[in-house]
Formats: sequence, structure tokens, C-alpha cells
Amino acid sequence: MDRERVRELLERLRSGEIEVGDALESLARLPFVDVPGARVDTHRALRAGLPEVVYAPGKTPEQVVEIVSALRGAGQDVLVTRVEPELAARVRERAPEADHDETARLLWFGPAEVAPVGKGSIAVVCAGTSDLPVAAEACGVARRFGNKVELLVDVGVAGLHRLLASSEVLRAARVLIVVAGMEGALPSVVGGLVDKPVIAVPTSVGYGAAFGGVAALLGMLTSCASNVTVVNIDNGFGAAYVATLINRL
Amino acid sequence: MDRERVRELLERLRSGEIEVGDALESLARLPFVDVPGARVDTHRALRAGLPEVVYAPGKTPEQVVEIVSALRGAGQDVLVTRVEPELAARVRERAPEADHDETARLLWFGPAEVAPVGKGSIAVVCAGTSDLPVAAEACGVARRFGNKVELLVDVGVAGLHRLLASSEVLRAARVLIVVAGMEGALPSVVGGLVDKPVIAVPTSVGYGAAFGGVAALLGMLTSCASNVTVVNIDNGFGAAYVATLINRL
Amino acid sequence: MDRERVRELLERLRSGEIEVGDALESLARLPFVDVPGARVDTHRALRAGLPEVVYAPGKTPEQVVEIVSALRGAGQDVLVTRVEPELAARVRERAPEADHDETARLLWFGPAEVAPVGKGSIAVVCAGTSDLPVAAEACGVARRFGNKVELLVDVGVAGLHRLLASSEVLRAARVLIVVAGMEGALPSVVGGLVDKPVIAVPTSVGYGAAFGGVAALLGMLTSCASNVTVVNIDNGFGAAYVATLINRL
Amino acid sequence: MDRERVRELLERLRSGEIEVGDALESLARLPFVDVPGARVDTHRALRAGLPEVVYAPGKTPEQVVEIVSALRGAGQDVLVTRVEPELAARVRERAPEADHDETARLLWFGPAEVAPVGKGSIAVVCAGTSDLPVAAEACGVARRFGNKVELLVDVGVAGLHRLLASSEVLRAARVLIVVAGMEGALPSVVGGLVDKPVIAVPTSVGYGAAFGGVAALLGMLTSCASNVTVVNIDNGFGAAYVATLINRL
Amino acid sequence: MDRERVRELLERLRSGEIEVGDALESLARLPFVDVPGARVDTHRALRAGLPEVVYAPGKTPEQVVEIVSALRGAGQDVLVTRVEPELAARVRERAPEADHDETARLLWFGPAEVAPVGKGSIAVVCAGTSDLPVAAEACGVARRFGNKVELLVDVGVAGLHRLLASSEVLRAARVLIVVAGMEGALPSVVGGLVDKPVIAVPTSVGYGAAFGGVAALLGMLTSCASNVTVVNIDNGFGAAYVATLINRL
Amino acid sequence: MDRERVRELLERLRSGEIEVGDALESLARLPFVDVPGARVDTHRALRAGLPEVVYAPGKTPEQVVEIVSALRGAGQDVLVTRVEPELAARVRERAPEADHDETARLLWFGPAEVAPVGKGSIAVVCAGTSDLPVAAEACGVARRFGNKVELLVDVGVAGLHRLLASSEVLRAARVLIVVAGMEGALPSVVGGLVDKPVIAVPTSVGYGAAFGGVAALLGMLTSCASNVTVVNIDNGFGAAYVATLINRL
Amino acid sequence: MDRERVRELLERLRSGEIEVGDALESLARLPFVDVPGARVDTHRALRAGLPEVVYAPGKTPEQVVEIVSALRGAGQDVLVTRVEPELAARVRERAPEADHDETARLLWFGPAEVAPVGKGSIAVVCAGTSDLPVAAEACGVARRFGNKVELLVDVGVAGLHRLLASSEVLRAARVLIVVAGMEGALPSVVGGLVDKPVIAVPTSVGYGAAFGGVAALLGMLTSCASNVTVVNIDNGFGAAYVATLINRL
Amino acid sequence: MDRERVRELLERLRSGEIEVGDALESLARLPFVDVPGARVDTHRALRAGLPEVVYAPGKTPEQVVEIVSALRGAGQDVLVTRVEPELAARVRERAPEADHDETARLLWFGPAEVAPVGKGSIAVVCAGTSDLPVAAEACGVARRFGNKVELLVDVGVAGLHRLLASSEVLRAARVLIVVAGMEGALPSVVGGLVDKPVIAVPTSVGYGAAFGGVAALLGMLTSCASNVTVVNIDNGFGAAYVATLINRL
Repeated sequence: MDRERVRELLERLRSGEIEVGDALESLARLPFVDVPGARVDTHRALRAGLPEVVYAPGKTPEQVVEIVSALRGAGQDVLVTRVEPELAARVRERAPEADHDETARLLWFGPAEVAPVGKGSIAVVCAGTSDLPVAAEACGVARRFGNKVELLVDVGVAGLHRLLASSEVLRAARVLIVVAGMEGALPSVVGGLVDKPVIAVPTSVGYGAAFGGVAALLGMLTSCASNVTVVNIDNGFGAAYVATLINRL
Repeated sequence: MDRERVRELLERLRSGEIEVGDALESLARLPFVDVPGARVDTHRALRAGLPEVVYAPGKTPEQVVEIVSALRGAGQDVLVTRVEPELAARVRERAPEADHDETARLLWFGPAEVAPVGKGSIAVVCAGTSDLPVAAEACGVARRFGNKVELLVDVGVAGLHRLLASSEVLRAARVLIVVAGMEGALPSVVGGLVDKPVIAVPTSVGYGAAFGGVAALLGMLTSCASNVTVVNIDNGFGAAYVATLINRL
Repeated sequence: MDRERVRELLERLRSGEIEVGDALESLARLPFVDVPGARVDTHRALRAGLPEVVYAPGKTPEQVVEIVSALRGAGQDVLVTRVEPELAARVRERAPEADHDETARLLWFGPAEVAPVGKGSIAVVCAGTSDLPVAAEACGVARRFGNKVELLVDVGVAGLHRLLASSEVLRAARVLIVVAGMEGALPSVVGGLVDKPVIAVPTSVGYGAAFGGVAALLGMLTSCASNVTVVNIDNGFGAAYVATLINRL
Repeated sequence: MDRERVRELLERLRSGEIEVGDALESLARLPFVDVPGARVDTHRALRAGLPEVVYAPGKTPEQVVEIVSALRGAGQDVLVTRVEPELAARVRERAPEADHDETARLLWFGPAEVAPVGKGSIAVVCAGTSDLPVAAEACGVARRFGNKVELLVDVGVAGLHRLLASSEVLRAARVLIVVAGMEGALPSVVGGLVDKPVIAVPTSVGYGAAFGGVAALLGMLTSCASNVTVVNIDNGFGAAYVATLINRL
Repeated sequence: MDRERVRELLERLRSGEIEVGDALESLARLPFVDVPGARVDTHRALRAGLPEVVYAPGKTPEQVVEIVSALRGAGQDVLVTRVEPELAARVRERAPEADHDETARLLWFGPAEVAPVGKGSIAVVCAGTSDLPVAAEACGVARRFGNKVELLVDVGVAGLHRLLASSEVLRAARVLIVVAGMEGALPSVVGGLVDKPVIAVPTSVGYGAAFGGVAALLGMLTSCASNVTVVNIDNGFGAAYVATLINRL
Repeated sequence: MDRERVRELLERLRSGEIEVGDALESLARLPFVDVPGARVDTHRALRAGLPEVVYAPGKTPEQVVEIVSALRGAGQDVLVTRVEPELAARVRERAPEADHDETARLLWFGPAEVAPVGKGSIAVVCAGTSDLPVAAEACGVARRFGNKVELLVDVGVAGLHRLLASSEVLRAARVLIVVAGMEGALPSVVGGLVDKPVIAVPTSVGYGAAFGGVAALLGMLTSCASNVTVVNIDNGFGAAYVATLINRL
Repeated sequence: MDRERVRELLERLRSGEIEVGDALESLARLPFVDVPGARVDTHRALRAGLPEVVYAPGKTPEQVVEIVSALRGAGQDVLVTRVEPELAARVRERAPEADHDETARLLWFGPAEVAPVGKGSIAVVCAGTSDLPVAAEACGVARRFGNKVELLVDVGVAGLHRLLASSEVLRAARVLIVVAGMEGALPSVVGGLVDKPVIAVPTSVGYGAAFGGVAALLGMLTSCASNVTVVNIDNGFGAAYVATLINRL
Repeated sequence: MDRERVRELLERLRSGEIEVGDALESLARLPFVDVPGARVDTHRALRAGLPEVVYAPGKTPEQVVEIVSALRGAGQDVLVTRVEPELAARVRERAPEADHDETARLLWFGPAEVAPVGKGSIAVVCAGTSDLPVAAEACGVARRFGNKVELLVDVGVAGLHRLLASSEVLRAARVLIVVAGMEGALPSVVGGLVDKPVIAVPTSVGYGAAFGGVAALLGMLTSCASNVTVVNIDNGFGAAYVATLINRL
């Protein structure tokens, strides 16, 4: 589309409709006009057909409301991530239509049910109950991004029977997100059971030598399963984002 | 298929063809028979329709030749990775049909050209010439795994014009592999230019605070582009493996 | 000047105005007399023609007021850095003339507008809104130190178009300060667009593998752009200080 | 026993057989007499009924031969660990009776078969072929220390079926040693399959984020299986030593 | 037992009591049925004859009470670990029969005295008073798991005489748990005094270069005493769990 | 002395005053009798002629009062270190005679002035005002341990003239304690100015790459001045303890 | 200039000289044409008026010769950095006109003396003789980039008198490069003596806790002197590059 | 003395013997004249009455011989440290009078026996035979610096009886150097046995989690014995240097 807008500009110059100076100015600035009042980049959403995403930490409730309003005014669905309870309460005072998922720490401004656009389902596999907030973020984001999602909880590697009992769910997925803290071994095991891409999310769950997710992160990066890639510690959003892109291919 | 073999076993038990004790024994052992002489797992290849892969480090030339022979005897194509020149020379003395890609450190036993099975192309983007061995590994593996591959070299972030000049190649790819050492910033920039999954490969290129790839690894994990996932330092093979799985979806 | 004061001392000794013992004493102590009551070194300010700077953390409001009073009494402009809101409030109770910049965490005792002494302008480039406090500190300090400053916000590397749209601002600067957290890639990209010195400031913005600014720090130290030097994590003040020295050359 | 020797000493003093000065001297020195010529502590072997162990690194062939001779002269069996091929060759020139296990890097001076003293068997489980030298050290040491040993190789977590096929071997063991590099996930999986103590040995196998065994070490320390304890990276000897003590209980 | 259930299933299939489809289904799912309402794995307890253990962090008081009720309803003894005072108070409001050990941070639902099942005693050796909470956890768990326990406190390596005065207690134990922070040297010294397995628990006690237990952890992993294995920082529970398994052998 | 007590014991046995069994018992237990009620080791104080020291963190006010009472009852002077204001207030309610030094976080039970026992003076050199609490701890401890102490504050390496102005104080000291955070360069500079032992104390002062004192610690350990040894981060007490021992030689 | 080329293109389109399609194509590709045969970016040199720089590691002698020839053919001066002796010898066989500086590991293709373009002098200050190769690289590069350079060697902080004796050289410089390994304290001290920008270069000199330059790097980043910025470990080239840019302002 | 030289200079100026310009010049340069040809600082030796020390790494045999000659010509004794065998051989070709201690890696130019100047003896305590080179360096340096030295070898903490048997040697020392690798626990134990200053030297001995001496370093820094200070990993020289200064007090 950008290319088209440039072509159109050039045609207008050719036909004498506009002057060289104007064309030069437009060429320099064209694709970068911001939403007024919010300085939010709407290009990504336009390009990928996804809702806008606002990362909450470091923003005041006022700022969040303002940005959401600007984007809603522009007809966009909006997802706010990493929303602490206090922020959620204050935003909903002003914008009561917001859908709040506490465990996933998400605020959603959009249709209650998003029709699936992805071609298959995404399995979100969660090692322990403490990893649930990160897994819930992945699920919540993936659903709002138009994916069918299956969530498996409490299937850590020290109790293999549960995981194996769910192997059909695993094999049915088009792409998998595996969330684990502590030693982060679950992606290796899941990766060995399927022949689909596995996105591993280390969590900061654990104590001592878990070092806030470093043990899990290193374990996932050095996984002996070749179909595993890794995102940042606790980054359920990022995993869901990439899984969405893959599921739309 | 395994399920089918179990069903068949149960049918034979039901019909009295075999005894309970035998069935019990078979159920315990069934899907795990190894290739004789090599103890190589052929399940993955069977499952995913990919060539067998042998990781060379820590194996003697004799062992490599032996494993390759066993697999070739079983009708498999074989790819050997991380092959140092000396090992390559010694293997080719005995198996002169091997195709050796020095830069990529690959030995290939299979058809000269592998017909593309992947649905689109994979772009391999390489920050600098020092990162080339890792990028070449990614390319070489992806091609043998049946993908169309485009390689872009020397498009580091400190010289954006080159990268931008290639943006159509980037946008044409179905999945991208971005290889970079030092500060590892390239995946963030490429990730912002496309709306496809980007697999980032940090390399051990650099000195001092590069810490053998750690700086690049951390940079990629904390990328501000949401469509980036990461594999281990120098793991061109893993990136190509996952890209292949995605490209077949 | 010190040399001149020593010469003068020696002349007075030679002429018999003072005794050997006094000269000896003076030679030992001469250039090190402190401001009474505050033990603040005024040499730096005298030497470089800059306001005095007081680093607030670890000082009580009383101590800050006392030091400021001593320095103001000596005719100095004073800048207090890293001022938390509570400290600012308590200082302004007693010294209501103080100018407080909340975002930049600065208290300023001096003229509302400082006339530019620097020869060109300093561009402060800020990757994301979360990095703004550090960028604001750099701006606020640079302005009080007599520089013309241009601030660019929200021009992260995953959305190159915004940065490129501002390339004339970048090229117009005599020295640039680039502030970024997470993967810290912005200085490499900016460094490739200009041929002026770039001072990179990593911020502690980010989570997980950002490790409180370490990822950004390592990324900046290993930048593939040769015109980048680095200061400590979150050290907006230090960047502005060096940029000022450069801008006065 | 020491207590007995002290009692005997006191009795002799009481009866006037020896003088106070002599008793005082003996009390200070008694249990610490060294083997002449070798300064090797024989207490451990005497106490625990185990062969003497000599750690080779940092010792010359001459020193190894000398120490072995002294110990053999004292009637002890001797095990030398971490023996590089060159050292082995030079020691065997002078002491051809030594039994050399190349993979395990052990030299053994003692009976070809050591009768089992341990009450059950020790299972040594090895994730990949690259981990074999460490696993072989554990096996070799455990056998010379009088244990029945079962070795399972190539049962990594990304190919669970092999491991599960061997679950009876696992369950039959009285204590298990699990050796793994890279992400070090195997002890967690094995730990979940048995209710016996599992000693985890991280290996330095792997590259990049494996950090020479650190990833495996952290993974094992943070294992979600409660029956896992850990020894140092590559410390097959230590694992066998502790497993022996447990197997004799 | 599982094996028996499978045999029984096969017998019923053989006799025509059930159909192939049902048998297939049962074979896939059999050993993994969860306790209704609590999703808690009761296999471990059944297998090892131990109480169920609930790790409190990240669970609400309601969840803890619910899980405990489900397990108590199933006739299980239950131990809750890492219980903060506030949680303990709230749980005991609803379940006043709980036995609360504040120092050890344990809640116990079971008989006041658990009859010893372990064959010998476990010595818990604690370097300093600051390490006491971790040592108390180890003691409290070991006692509820049916072991006779001896606790030695304040026997750090810089005051050897106290430790040596207790050497009979050390030698009388069948297995030892040694808890230490700071430099973590105590396991090496204790390991040299006994010929039994020593489980070392580093604690997060200390400041500066103690790095939250890392100094102690590294010290224990590199111990020059061969009979030492290590668990995670502050993991008194894990040490007691393994010691229990060893003590039952 | 211990040797003498043993000799005396042996003499009494020889003379028949006591029995072998009693002697045996006494020999095992003799030098390790604790102060009743407090389990505090009084050996160190007796041996070195120093006050008892109680490290406050992790102790309740009640415990501190109890320990102090026991020691005071035994005629000992007592120093409590790392005392937070709240603890100090609560202890002084019950023991109003305690001397509280807030900056140094010390409580002192003993004479207002301790007569110097050390042979010379100890210079405590402090880089910046933020390092003052650690330096004050070193001073406060050294004075109560009977040393003459000189304190130099605010003599950081970026303003050498102040340090050089005090060089006579530095040269007059018998042993020096140098306290610095951030880059920790001061001990190197001081070490080059004197030929006496310098004890370097890194502090946790600083931010970003100071890493809580690690930068200073590494800088001090790698000092190019050969007369520098190092203690733990913020360990003003330890530095004063060693300086006292040296000053008494 | 680029802007001018675009304007010219637009004028030609306007006048009908070229077609819209061609203009579109040219707009996409224009400023990014590479030097034929060498793929070397000549933009930087053109922009900044500096010689081309080739980083040698990872290039074969043939590649170095080829790149140099291409650049020399284009009329450029060329500097090759990090040249090991063997590479230098092989390059000079083919290109004997190359000027080789062994200590600095530089090969230079250009005039023997480069006329100073920088406005003042650059002082390169080197802590110890072991840091000399890095300092020599900085000097050699700065001279070929057209700067007057003063080198001070062996002026470490533990022997302040030498540094102070050279203070006039320090004060005369327009910008300073300070090279130091071990504790890296020299930039702090130099920074306190001058009011010019100081570029600190940590070196990998040292052992133990120097950690290959990390101690020096952290020390420089946390310097208490505000006029210090830092480049990567051993990066003498980068320091000279930035110093050149500053010296030309 | 410097003060005296300045006074003398001032007297000569007062009396008209010299001019103001000369006095000024002399005041600036006076105490910093270097030894011609060698640029070696002789101040330290003059000040402290110690031999000159040359650190060999990074110097050619020619440089070492040249420096030694210059210093010998100036009447100084010289000690060269960290001398590898090849360097030693080449130096002794030209200077056969050098005394070479291979284990300690020292070359000595001075009297065969140095008369003790230190007031007491220094005990060097060495944990294991692998730590011997570092301990030997400490001994060799301390003896050439005029101290009486006692060496205890192989007294690691896992075999306490040997250490305790030597406790009189420990108690007789005026200052102790304790050398240990691996967990570095020995200084804590020795520190508890004596009331003299203990200088701890971590060594790089060990593997895996020893991390090249880091485990020992951290252990020593966090020692629970208050009389322990620490030097850099493997820094036997530094320990001996400080011990010498203490022993002369």
C-alpha cells in the first residue's frame, strides 16, 4: 500500500497536480503520520490486521485511558497488557466497557468473542500453577488475536503421565506455546512429542538458583529438541504474538 | 501410526493369535526399536519427513561413517552438521559421494537438489561477514530440508540503507532467520519491517563485552519487536529446523 | 591559575614578605580550601564555568538545603539531580524559588533561561516513553549547562520510519545523546546515520533478560557503529555533562 | 576406634607405663600419622572400606607412580581418576598391571572384578553420547567401589519413548545417577519416575548458552522433582562415591 | 501395581469382557486419574508412603484450605511448606486442628507424633542462627516423614571446637543434612568427619559477595569432601525429602 | 592455656585424683563450655582481649537484650552491629545505658572512652559521603576495640587535591582502612601513597553497573597497588577487626 | 547531497525525461550502490572524510588484499586493524608498500605522514606497559585520521607522582583517551584533572578477578568523574574514531 | 624526606642561591625522576626497603634482562615473578647468577639468604598440592622480603586432623597466608584457630562450579571468621607483600 501511495504521489507530480517541492516534502514524511494526541503507531495494526496493544507499566491511568480513547476513536480494538489490579479499577471507572482478565492481567476493548482467523489451534502448555499468569496472558492474547486456543495446566516433567495423557491435544495443535519456570524442562519434552514449532516461555517462578527465570531461560535455549525457539522471561504476550503470525500462515 | 500398531496388537490378542504375556511385553517395548549398530532414532525423520541429522562434535570419523552407513542403508538422506575440515576430509575418503559445504560446515548425503516442499521462501539475513558461517549453516540446512532460501549478507544496522534496499526480499519471505553477533540489533530492525515470524540467531562474533554471544543473545531476547523468537548462540541449524516446520504449515 | 598563585607565593618569599615556614604551609594546602559549612568542591565549577551539581540520593532535605544555601551564597547556580517528589516538596518549602522538573527529577537554582554557550545543538534521542525520565534528565541538564537541545521521543528501532523522518534533526546536531533500554539498539542505528559523536545511555527499562539495563549496556558497548561511546545505566546526567564539554570545544 | 586408642593411652598413663609428657604429645598427634613417602591420607579408606583414590590432574607421571606404589605397598587398592591418555601410557610403562579405562579416564590397581558390597544396584542414566565420559567415570568408579551398575545411554528427554522403555531398570535401582549436559532436564524426568534418591551430574557438554555446564547445573538445582540432589559439573566420581555410601546403608 | 492393572485389562479383553476400542482408550488414560476438585497428584504419596506436600507460595488461603480438605478427605496426611504467618493465621481460622511450626514455616495436618519408619537418624547441622529457618524446615519435614532427627545449631567452621564436641552425634547419623550460608564451608568439614552421605543446603543468609546464597552454593558444589551432594538455595524441604528416601533404604 | 588445662587434667589422672572415664569425658568436652542461657562463644573475646560482638540482623530485640545481659553478667563489654533505628529504640527501652551511634549503626555497652591498646593509629579514608555509614562502622568499631582513629571523608579520586592535602595523615597511620563504592579506585591511589597495609572495603553505593558493590569489589581485588587486601562489600566491621589485630602486633 | 539527487530525479520526472516506473525504482535503490567486487561501504569514508577501515579478524590474507585493492583503486586510503604478524607478512608479500605497525597491529595504505585536520591534540594515556598494544592502536589510528597525538605510558594510579608530573600534557589536550586494565581507575583520576571529554578504554590485561577486562569496564562505567565515557574492552580503534570526530568539531 | 627536600629548596631560593623560575620547575618535577633506560619506579623500594619486583608476563626476555641490569646497576636486589620455564632459561643464559625457583615461578637476583627483618614468622598454609605453586610464590617472595616463613601443605578442611595437628605452627605465626582453591573454606577454619591477621588467597584450582577461582574468592570474602582479608585469585605475591608490611610493624 505504501508503494501505491508513492506511485499515486508520483503520478500527481507527473500530471502537474502538485509541485516538486511538495512532492519532496511528502516523500520524506508520508508514511509516518501519528494518531493525534496519543503518538501511537497504528502501522503495525493496519499491516497485520491485529488489535493495537498498549503495554501498561510506566503509564498512568490517565495516559492509558487517553491512548485507548484515541485508538477506539480511530476504530481500533485495543488490548492493554500487564495491568495491575489498581490500574484496572481506575481505568474501568472511566471506561466500564473494558473486559478485565485478572489472572492474565489484560484489559480488552473489543468484541466479547473474536472470530478465529488462524488456520489451526494453538496449544498453551503450562508446567505448574505458579506459571499460570504467564500462560493466561498467552491464552488471552492469542484468543483476542483470533486464534482457537487449548490450555493444559500442571503438566510438569516430574509427573510425565499427565503430559502423556494429553498428547493428542499436543499433536492436534498447529503451533505450541510452552510456559515453565524453575528448570524449564517442559519445552524439551513437549518438543520431542510433536513435529510443530514450539515457542518456549521461561517464567520468573522459582527461588534460589532459579535466579528469576535465568535457569529456565538457559534450559530452553540449550534444549535438545530442535523445534524450540525462546522468548524473554515472562513474555506470554510475545509468544502469543508470534504464534498468531505462524497460525495465520 | 503407533496407535495403529497398538490396535493391531490388541486385535491379535483378541483373536488369540498371541498371548497376554507377549502382548504385555510388546506394549512395553513396541515403538522404540533402534536401527541396528547405530542406536540412532529414526522416529523424528519418519514423523516429520525430514532427513536424519548427525551432530558431529564428539564423534570420531569412524563413528560418523558408521552412523551414516546405517542410515543410508535404511534409505534415509543424512545431513552431518558442525563438520570440521579434518573430519570432512576423512569422511570423504570413505564416502566420496558426500557433498561438503565448507563455510556451512555441512556434509550432505542425498540428492544434489532437494525439491522445495515448504510453501514459501525463507529469508536468511546476516549482519556481517563474520556471522556468515552461522548464516550459511542456516541456509544449507534449510535448502536440504526442502525450502527456497534467500540470503542477504552484510546488512548491519549501522548501515541501514543496504537493509532498506532489500526490503522487498524481506517482505516476500514467509519466515525469516536473522543472524547477528555483537549487539545483535538486526532482528529488532528486521522485525519492525515485516509482519512474519522472525527467528533470531545470536552469534559468538565480537570481543570484549560481546562475551561470546551473550550481548547479542540478551539483545534479541529483549527485542522491542514482538515477532522475534530466539535460538541458542550460533545455532543456525535450529533456526533452519524451526523455519522449515513453519514453512510447511 | 594555580601555577600563577604558586609563582606569586614564591615571589613573596623571595622578597622576604613571608617566611619559609609559611610558604611551606601554603604550598601544602593552597588549592584545596573548601566552602565553609558544606565541604563542597567548587573547583570544578570554577574551572569549567558550569553550575554546581548536587547528587541527591543519600542526603536529607536539610543537607540539600544547607549545601544549596552555601553554594548560592557563594554566587553559584546549583542543579540538584535524582530528586524524588518528597524531597522536592520539602526542599521547596524552604527554598520556594527552586525550579522543579518532575520527569527529569531535577531541582534548579538559577536563571529561568540559560543563554546557550555551546557552539551547536545537542540532540537527545529516546527509544520509548519508558526511557523518558532518563532522556529528560539529559535534556534538563544540558539546557542548564547552556546548550540548545532537541528531543526526539518514541523512535525505537522496531519502527524505523519515525527515526528516518527525523534524520535532519539528527544530522543538524553537533553531538547526540541516545537513550534506550531493552536491547539498546538505537545508538547503533543513529550512529550509522550521522558522523558526529554519539553518547549512548542504557536505561534500566525492561524485564527478564533486560537484567536492569545490562542487555542495553552490553549492546551499546559492542555497537557496530564506531562513533558510539557509553555511560552508566540511567546516567542521563553524565551524558549531558560530556555532551556539554564537547559542544563547547 | 580412635576413642579406644585414646582410652588405651590413658590406661597406660594411669598405670605409669608412660609419662605425662609423652601422653600429651601422643594426644596431640595420634590419629594423623601419614604413609611414609607419599603424604596420602589413608584414614578415609580405612574408615569406609573403600580403595584409595588419586586425582591425577596437576600430578606428574612420576608422582602418580610413587603415590600408587606407596599405597599398593600398604596393601591398598588404588583408583586414579581424570587420567589423560599420555599419562596413562607413561604410568603403564612402569606399572603394566594397571587396568586402563580410556572412556572413563580411570586407572585401576586392584582385582579385575570387585565383589559387590552394595545392597542393591546403581543405575547410571546418560542423556546423550557426548555425556558418556562422565557417565563412564561414574560407572567405573561405582564398580570398583563394589556396586552392581546398570548403564542407560542416549535416553534424552526429547525422545521420551526410549527412557520409558527402560523404566523397569530405573525402578529396580536402589540409587540413581543421572548425567546430562545442555538443559540438564533428564534428572527431573527420571526423578518423577522413581521414588529413590537421584544424584544429578551436570556435564560441560553443549555450546552457547550452555555456558560450560551452567545451564545444566541450574536446571538440576531447580528441579521440580524433590528426590534430586546435585554434584559439581562433570563430577562423575563424586556421584559414584555418594551413591556407593547410600548403597551400603 | 500399574502393571497389574494393565494385565487385568488385557485379561478382560482376552476374555471378551471388554472391546478393543475400550481397551485402547483405557490403555491411553489409565494411571492418570486425578483427585476430584483439587487436581493434586496423589501418585507420589501412594508410591512412597509419604504425606502429601503443598507448596504454599502463590496460593491463596482459600486454595490451600480447599486442597488440604480434598486430601484430608482422601485420608491423606498433609504438610504445607513455606507458610507465611498471615497465611497460617487464615488457614487456622478455618482448620484449627493444623499444627503450625513458625520457625520452620510449616503447617501439619496429621498425627502429633509420626512413628519413625526410617532405619536410622538424620542429623541436621546448622552453621549459624540465621540459617535456622531452613534447618528447622528440614527437621520439621524429616520428622513428619517418619525420621528420628538430631539438630545441631551454631556450629560454624570458624569455631571448630563446638562442631568437634558434637562429633558423636554426627557419626551416629545414617544421613546428614548440613545447612549453611555465607561461605558455605560447613559441609566440607562435616563431610570429612563422617563416612555417610551429606546433603548440603546453601542458604541465602549473608550480604555483599554472598550474593543471596550463590557463594555458599558454589562452595558446596566444589567441596573437597567427596560425600557431599547439594540442593537448591534455602531448600530445606528437598534435603529432608532425599534424606528420608535414603534413610528408608 | 588449653594445653595447660589438659596437662593439669593428665596430672590429676596420673595422681589418681580422677578416673580414666572422667578424664576421657573431660578431654572430649573441655574447652567448649558455653555461657549459660545465651549459647554465645566467649572464647574469642578471652583469647584476643576484645569486646564481644553481636551481629543484629535476624535477631529480635528480646534476643539481643538477652544475649547482651548474659555477656554483661559475665563481665564482658559488648558491641552490637548493624542495628536498625527501631531495634536500637527497643533495646534502649530496656537497657538505657547503651550508647547508640546512629550513622555507624552500633550499640555499645562499655566505657565511654576505651583506652588505646593499639600501638599506632588507624586511618579510615572514605571516598564519598554516601560511603559514610560503612566508614563510620569501621571507626566506631576500631575505637571500641582500643585504637586511635583518624577519619578522612570526601576524598574521592576525581578530586585528588583533597586527598593529597591529607597525605600526612595517611602516612602517619600504622594501618589504613579505605572505604569506597562505585569504581572503588581509592585504595589503589592511597596504596600508592603509603607503605603500610591497606584494607579496602567496597560499598554497595552506586547504581547501574556498580551492581551493588561488585564494580568496587573487583576494582579493589585487581588493584595495581600491592599493599591492598579486601573484605566483603559494606564490611566495615571486618576491616576494623583486622586493623585492630594488626595495630596490636 | 542525497536530498539533491532526489530533487534532481524528481525534476527529470516532472520534465518527462524519465517515467514514473523508473523514478519509483530509482527512489527505492538510489543511495545504496556498492563498490564493485568488494561489497565495501564507501559511504562512511565519503561522508566523514576519513580513510576506509578494514577489521582483519575472520578474513583471509586473500580477502584483505582484494578489499584493499578495490578501495585503493577507488582512490581511498585504507587502514587494516587487528592484524596478526602472520597476516601482515602475507599481505606485505603482495602489497609491499603497506606500512606495518606491529605493536598497534595496524597496516596502513596511505601517506607516511597525514596532515593534521583535527583542531587540537589528542592525549592517549596508558596505565601500564601491558596496556600498550591497545594504546598504540588508539595512537596509530588517531594519527592516520589526521590528529596530533601525545602518548603517556606507565602512569598508573598507584604511582601518582608520574601522572601529576605530566599534568600539563593532559591539560593541553582537546580530548583524552585513557587506556587501563586491572581496576581501570586511571580515567577517574585523569577525568578529575581536566575539563575535557575523556574516552576510557578498558583492556583485558590482568588475571583472576580482572575477568578479562570486566573489572576495568565496570570501574570506568561507574567512574565518579562526570566527563568520562566508555568504549568496549580493548577497543583502541573506537576510542580514536570518536576522539577524531570530537577533535574535528 | 620529600618535605625536607622542599624545605631545602625553599631555603636556597630565600638565600638567593637559585631563581624563582628554577624553584618553580623543581617543585613541579622533584620527586619523580626515573631510573635512566628502564623507566622503573624506584620509589617504592627506597621507601619500603624492599627489593624491586618485576612482573614478567607481557615482557620479552630482552626486556626482562634490560630492566634487571638497570636495577642491579643501581644497586638494587630484584625479584622477577610469574616466570615461565622458557623465559627463565633465556634469562639465565645471559644472567647465570639468577636463582630460579621453578615451582614458585620466581627469578631472584640478590643474596642467597636474606636476613630476617620481620619481627615474627609468617605461616603459609596450603589446602592441596594443586595450590602449591601459589603457596610457593607466597613463600618465595616472603623469604626474599626478609621474613621467616613456615609452610604447611595438604591441610584441607575435609581432613581436619592434619590441620589441628599443626595448630602450634599456626598459633606461633605473627601473620598467616592461607591458600586454597575449590570451595576456599580453609581461611575460615584457620581464622577461627588463631587471633592474628589471616590473608586469604583464592586459587584457580578446581573445575566446573569452581569457575576459575570465583567459588573460592566468594567463599573467602564471605568468611564467617572476622580476621580474614582477601587478595586476587592466584595472587601469592600480593599476599606476601602485605604480610611483609604487617610483619615489619
